Amino acid sequence: MNFVEEIIRLFDRSLIISCWKYIFPVLVVAYLIIFLYDKHLYGGKKVKEAAPSEKLDGIEYVGEIDSEGFDPTPVLEEKEHVPFAGATVFLDNDPHKAAFRFYKIVNNRRSVRQFSSRPVDISIVEKCVHAAGTSPSGAHTEPWTFCLVSDTEIKAKIREIVEAEELINYQQRMSKQWTTDLKPLKTNHVKEYLTEAPCLILIFKQTYGLKVDGSKKQHYYNEISTSIATGILLCALQAAGLNSLVTTPLNCGPALRHLLGRPVNEKLLVLLPVGYAAKDCTVPDLQRKPVEDILVKY
Amino acid sequence: MNFVEEIIRLFDRSLIISCWKYIFPVLVVAYLIIFLYDKHLYGGKKVKEAAPSEKLDGIEYVGEIDSEGFDPTPVLEEKEHVPFAGATVFLDNDPHKAAFRFYKIVNNRRSVRQFSSRPVDISIVEKCVHAAGTSPSGAHTEPWTFCLVSDTEIKAKIREIVEAEELINYQQRMSKQWTTDLKPLKTNHVKEYLTEAPCLILIFKQTYGLKVDGSKKQHYYNEISTSIATGILLCALQAAGLNSLVTTPLNCGPALRHLLGRPVNEKLLVLLPVGYAAKDCTVPDLQRKPVEDILVKY
Repeated sequence: MNFVEEIIRLFDRSLIISCWKYIFPVLVVAYLIIFLYDKHLYGGKKVKEAAPSEKLDGIEYVGEIDSEGFDPTPVLEEKEHVPFAGATVFLDNDPHKAAFRFYKIVNNRRSVRQFSSRPVDISIVEKCVHAAGTSPSGAHTEPWTFCLVSDTEIKAKIREIVEAEELINYQQRMSKQWTTDLKPLKTNHVKEYLTEAPCLILIFKQTYGLKVDGSKKQHYYNEISTSIATGILLCALQAAGLNSLVTTPLNCGPALRHLLGRPVNEKLLVLLPVGYAAKDCTVPDLQRKPVEDILVKY
Repeated sequence: MNFVEEIIRLFDRSLIISCWKYIFPVLVVAYLIIFLYDKHLYGGKKVKEAAPSEKLDGIEYVGEIDSEGFDPTPVLEEKEHVPFAGATVFLDNDPHKAAFRFYKIVNNRRSVRQFSSRPVDISIVEKCVHAAGTSPSGAHTEPWTFCLVSDTEIKAKIREIVEAEELINYQQRMSKQWTTDLKPLKTNHVKEYLTEAPCLILIFKQTYGLKVDGSKKQHYYNEISTSIATGILLCALQAAGLNSLVTTPLNCGPALRHLLGRPVNEKLLVLLPVGYAAKDCTVPDLQRKPVEDILVKY
């Protein structure tokens, strides 16, 4: 213990030890002051910090995105509002018939996992994406990017990435309850539809935007907005006779983002294979809730 | 300084001071061990802990909902899959025409903040909600409740709750950037549309479900699923010639949930006034992004 003794000898003669009897009381008094001030502020009660989502829904948009980045110019131009005549383009002049016909169209949609090799006219899918782009969004930020992949090689790479992650998901990450609940859907980590479907749409939410000067632009409620746009896309695809499947490949976002060369502000929300159902396509034998179970009238 | 001198004298004779020369080297050695172990683990780099959502998207569904609550029976019945013929009900036999017509319908939708007093046939709105209920959802859990309010008194109470919170939101909670970005939309805490619109739809996401035995049922991706259903609802309303507005009243969820007597597993996602645009209705003079700006082809 020669080394330790050396250190002891060193500190014995040092300034810190000789001054300790002065430093210590100062520390004690400082602690007392902090303790009493704290008690004065919170009445002695330990305040449990609530999780942000419990405190205030939408809290993520309450703070400034950049502390130094406040821009007094709104993202949209401030212009006079213009007259709007209400809905003038709809499905049928008789609103009952229109609502019923629309219901029949979307009720014909099922999640399809087996696709035919029949090619899809890309211009149709483009028009459907155009329709999805009419979605409302927080402060009209339009925080979405639709990546339409029809290249065979890129589809194969996407399948590779997704299947590798999904194997880990099914074996390790997902709860026993989750894999159990998925059993009736007969899904596993093998995702043939990613190469069988003629095209894939990867929908990214833009968590923030960038202004011309490179500063960040807040994208309010970007996940809800992009999901609503996804709902509109599903209706558009069905209206055009196309089948699709909404998938949320767990933990594949960053790798797919890199593959498609998308910027860091974009996060994968959903991935949709799009095409025509295979001739021998089957779907789970499930029912939808009757409207009385989802609608409460006041 | 008699008090301080007293304390000094007290500590001069105390055990902690006389043992200090032994304690100090031990602390130094302990710190060194911790430092070296840390360096060994992380290669000397300070690892910044990623936010849960960055670590693994969908992480919230990875754990069991109840530690003791695993149910070996899937929520859905395990049945043989049934054949599916693909989309057979669509908008037009010519898919180009169908896609284009659907685009024209939804592109006619604008967020409306001034409603006419013209009443709405509730059965039409019901059919639109029925259409929204065809939305896909994680493991077919259908995690949504649509509350349709046409009662004048309840609408007035909803307006009261929302305006009280929105006043605080605009004055205190929302960032300066947020209220600035909203200026071109000319919104403030006064929400006339909540009493002017003939009906309001409050859409709740069910964060979990309840089985017959009272145990919890996991609702995978309930926010995304309910938002997609909202997108389908918007299309249905527009198809039937109705106008609406998607609002996310910040921090009003719990009070509105209580008012409507909804259970704790339901959280307000969006509130939509629904009706016909007022004759003098105006909307912000804004454009939507061209399709090239939202679509990337691979």
